[in-house]
Amino acid sequence: MLKELKEKVFLGNLELVKQNLVTLTWGNASGLDEKSGLVVIKPSGVSYSDMQADDMVVVDLEGNLIDGKYKPSSDTATHLHLYKKFPNVKGIVHTHSKWATIFSQAGISVQPYGTTHADHFFGEIPCTRVLTDEEIADNYELNTGKVIVETFENLNLDPLSIPAVLVNNHGPFTWGENIIKAVHNSVALEAVAEMAYMVLSINPSVHPIKQTILDKHYYRKHGANAYYGQR
Amino acid sequence: MLKELKEKVFLGNLELVKQNLVTLTWGNASGLDEKSGLVVIKPSGVSYSDMQADDMVVVDLEGNLIDGKYKPSSDTATHLHLYKKFPNVKGIVHTHSKWATIFSQAGISVQPYGTTHADHFFGEIPCTRVLTDEEIADNYELNTGKVIVETFENLNLDPLSIPAVLVNNHGPFTWGENIIKAVHNSVALEAVAEMAYMVLSINPSVHPIKQTILDKHYYRKHGANAYYGQR
Amino acid sequence: MLKELKEKVFLGNLELVKQNLVTLTWGNASGLDEKSGLVVIKPSGVSYSDMQADDMVVVDLEGNLIDGKYKPSSDTATHLHLYKKFPNVKGIVHTHSKWATIFSQAGISVQPYGTTHADHFFGEIPCTRVLTDEEIADNYELNTGKVIVETFENLNLDPLSIPAVLVNNHGPFTWGENIIKAVHNSVALEAVAEMAYMVLSINPSVHPIKQTILDKHYYRKHGANAYYGQR
Amino acid sequence: MLKELKEKVFLGNLELVKQNLVTLTWGNASGLDEKSGLVVIKPSGVSYSDMQADDMVVVDLEGNLIDGKYKPSSDTATHLHLYKKFPNVKGIVHTHSKWATIFSQAGISVQPYGTTHADHFFGEIPCTRVLTDEEIADNYELNTGKVIVETFENLNLDPLSIPAVLVNNHGPFTWGENIIKAVHNSVALEAVAEMAYMVLSINPSVHPIKQTILDKHYYRKHGANAYYGQR
Repeated sequence: MLKELKEKVFLGNLELVKQNLVTLTWGNASGLDEKSGLVVIKPSGVSYSDMQADDMVVVDLEGNLIDGKYKPSSDTATHLHLYKKFPNVKGIVHTHSKWATIFSQAGISVQPYGTTHADHFFGEIPCTRVLTDEEIADNYELNTGKVIVETFENLNLDPLSIPAVLVNNHGPFTWGENIIKAVHNSVALEAVAEMAYMVLSINPSVHPIKQTILDKHYYRKHGANAYYGQR
Repeated sequence: MLKELKEKVFLGNLELVKQNLVTLTWGNASGLDEKSGLVVIKPSGVSYSDMQADDMVVVDLEGNLIDGKYKPSSDTATHLHLYKKFPNVKGIVHTHSKWATIFSQAGISVQPYGTTHADHFFGEIPCTRVLTDEEIADNYELNTGKVIVETFENLNLDPLSIPAVLVNNHGPFTWGENIIKAVHNSVALEAVAEMAYMVLSINPSVHPIKQTILDKHYYRKHGANAYYGQR
Repeated sequence: MLKELKEKVFLGNLELVKQNLVTLTWGNASGLDEKSGLVVIKPSGVSYSDMQADDMVVVDLEGNLIDGKYKPSSDTATHLHLYKKFPNVKGIVHTHSKWATIFSQAGISVQPYGTTHADHFFGEIPCTRVLTDEEIADNYELNTGKVIVETFENLNLDPLSIPAVLVNNHGPFTWGENIIKAVHNSVALEAVAEMAYMVLSINPSVHPIKQTILDKHYYRKHGANAYYGQR
Repeated sequence: MLKELKEKVFLGNLELVKQNLVTLTWGNASGLDEKSGLVVIKPSGVSYSDMQADDMVVVDLEGNLIDGKYKPSSDTATHLHLYKKFPNVKGIVHTHSKWATIFSQAGISVQPYGTTHADHFFGEIPCTRVLTDEEIADNYELNTGKVIVETFENLNLDPLSIPAVLVNNHGPFTWGENIIKAVHNSVALEAVAEMAYMVLSINPSVHPIKQTILDKHYYRKHGANAYYGQR
């Protein structure tokens, strides 16, 4: 069932390890099959070195187990909520990658300080508010998804032009039009977060880049007039 | 003798190298055989690249050499004291891993600033007091064990829910229900120590996460109601 | 066409990956064929792992596509302007390497704090001014080249004795008498930028090294009286 | 000629690369043959990946070329002066390893903040004064050796119990009773320098460890009563 997507989700999860974004089992990636509305996701707590493509778990958007011998990732409810609320998102990644997690723990958004950021994210990568005790006690993972959506709504951000968020006290989620793009966004987030940290440390009064540079670099790579890469 | 445990202890020691927790020969891991009350530990000063499973040393809880052609780790007395005083601990790891050692040298506990910490450690990872000159002069390694136990008693901490300590001026010890868990706790400690360092550096007034998040993440992974991983 | 130079440019690009200077596809290297006045450069947005020597693109100094099945790097106009204005430069490298990019984002030149710097760069590595909105809107990549040349002219710097620049908000360009030297200068820039960052962080009042040491080390390796290496 | 020592010096140089202490060709290691009073050293500017054991160069203590098809390291005069002045030193290593070089550039000694330091160095690792313009202009490399010896004499330090120095503005030299120990001291220096940097950054008022701990750890590993390792 969904053999091709399982393979992609499996490879996307392994790529997180290769890119040094995952320690132990601290990460999970999923993909949405648009036709069936089903989601393929990493099994919970299974070691990356033992895992096979066939171990990926299939759930529906309500979280019902459809196929697979394992329990899905404990963060599945967060993934599902994002698929429901963010149109055109078909791949999601969660990690505890070092620099993105440091910003999450410090409760600070990642501002765009250079063109590397602008090439991938069309503005600041926001950090959510802290969940309330009630949101933590019940349906914690669903509420994590909700606070992400709330953050994007409050700031009036487009999830596809800023395909990443920092969950306060926790760590990053990234997404994209497919799982490969979601993984690349995790890689890009980690790189820009590290550089932002170092820029802020050596120059605490640094300003984000101006909108014209942000526009230039973002639209070099995205949209109808993009001219980066091959068509 | 204790062939299976020797193999596990051997692999646990090598895993420390793979996880970049050990420079030169600065680390040692041991395992307790509950039935016989014997401990298998790395030989002292032997290079990880030359070492074989059969080179592991067997001692009893009083430190008597039971089996092996080498002298046991110079830190053996610390391991033995912890096995005696911390019930259900059956694997212990000592390293000079970079970030945990930096906190040990700075004499600062690692506070929980995020869910990565809460997933593995149910509260701050304490730093011991400095040993007195008398404690250093005689039975230094035993006294290192004693100051660890004293730290947990003074703070009323449960060693199995906080399976790590920072020995002041020195470096970390971690432990667990078996040597694999003790090694994983070393990996987790190093990751959370590095992130805590960076969070503190960029935001010196940062607060630890609130108890409700600490509870949520710790109990997602531990105890009767854990729902992370496969059962 | 230009088979030998394509191979060198291909290997130069791969060396950037091996030296950890490139994340995803964030980098490009080129070489100038002096005889024909043609430039060989990396294709835009092509993954380093899939790329072959034969995928390199040949353009003339006006940017016309001469040979190749791909579009050239989106930064081609910057490379071409530097080849036109900087005599004897026959290899150029652009990356978003971490530490050089951090200085670019902070808008700070890299001062010479030690002999490692002096061995490769005969003085500070300058950071350009920020481009104006007009320069960004039209011919952005050409204007990037122009602001680099302007920086060297304003500071009266010799591009061959300081074969590197930090483009403000963006990242580094390096160059040399051939592509191998340009790549080595990227490696050296990254190393001296990281060390400069750390020196500045721990000692904000540190002074650059004095001119006599700068001279000594630079001329040990460069010019008629060099005595480093084999002749 | 001196085939065995050439092999050891060759392997010592390669070990510097494996231990990530060398970028490009920024390092050199040598060994002294006590019987003949000859020194085997890396050739100048030769790439580590192309180098063979037979490429090592033999010089006498006055710097005369005795054997080899290459010129010796440009730092040879520094090595030779240390062999003459530091009894029992039979291996010397020079690198621009990152953290030791950062301290050299900041002009700060590395204080002992923990037992990792004490295990290898019996006190602070000193930083030399800056050379005078005259010392730089003539016999620079010899004067580098002289300022190292001066530093140890002024501070009344024993080179074998503190087998490392930071040359101001430049980088570290380490040594030992043989080239393997000299290389290990480079590894240890780099590790303790990085940790010292981070300890100082997060706690600028931190004190060095007390003498009793320094003694304990140093004499666990060195001298007649050492009990670390196998005998």
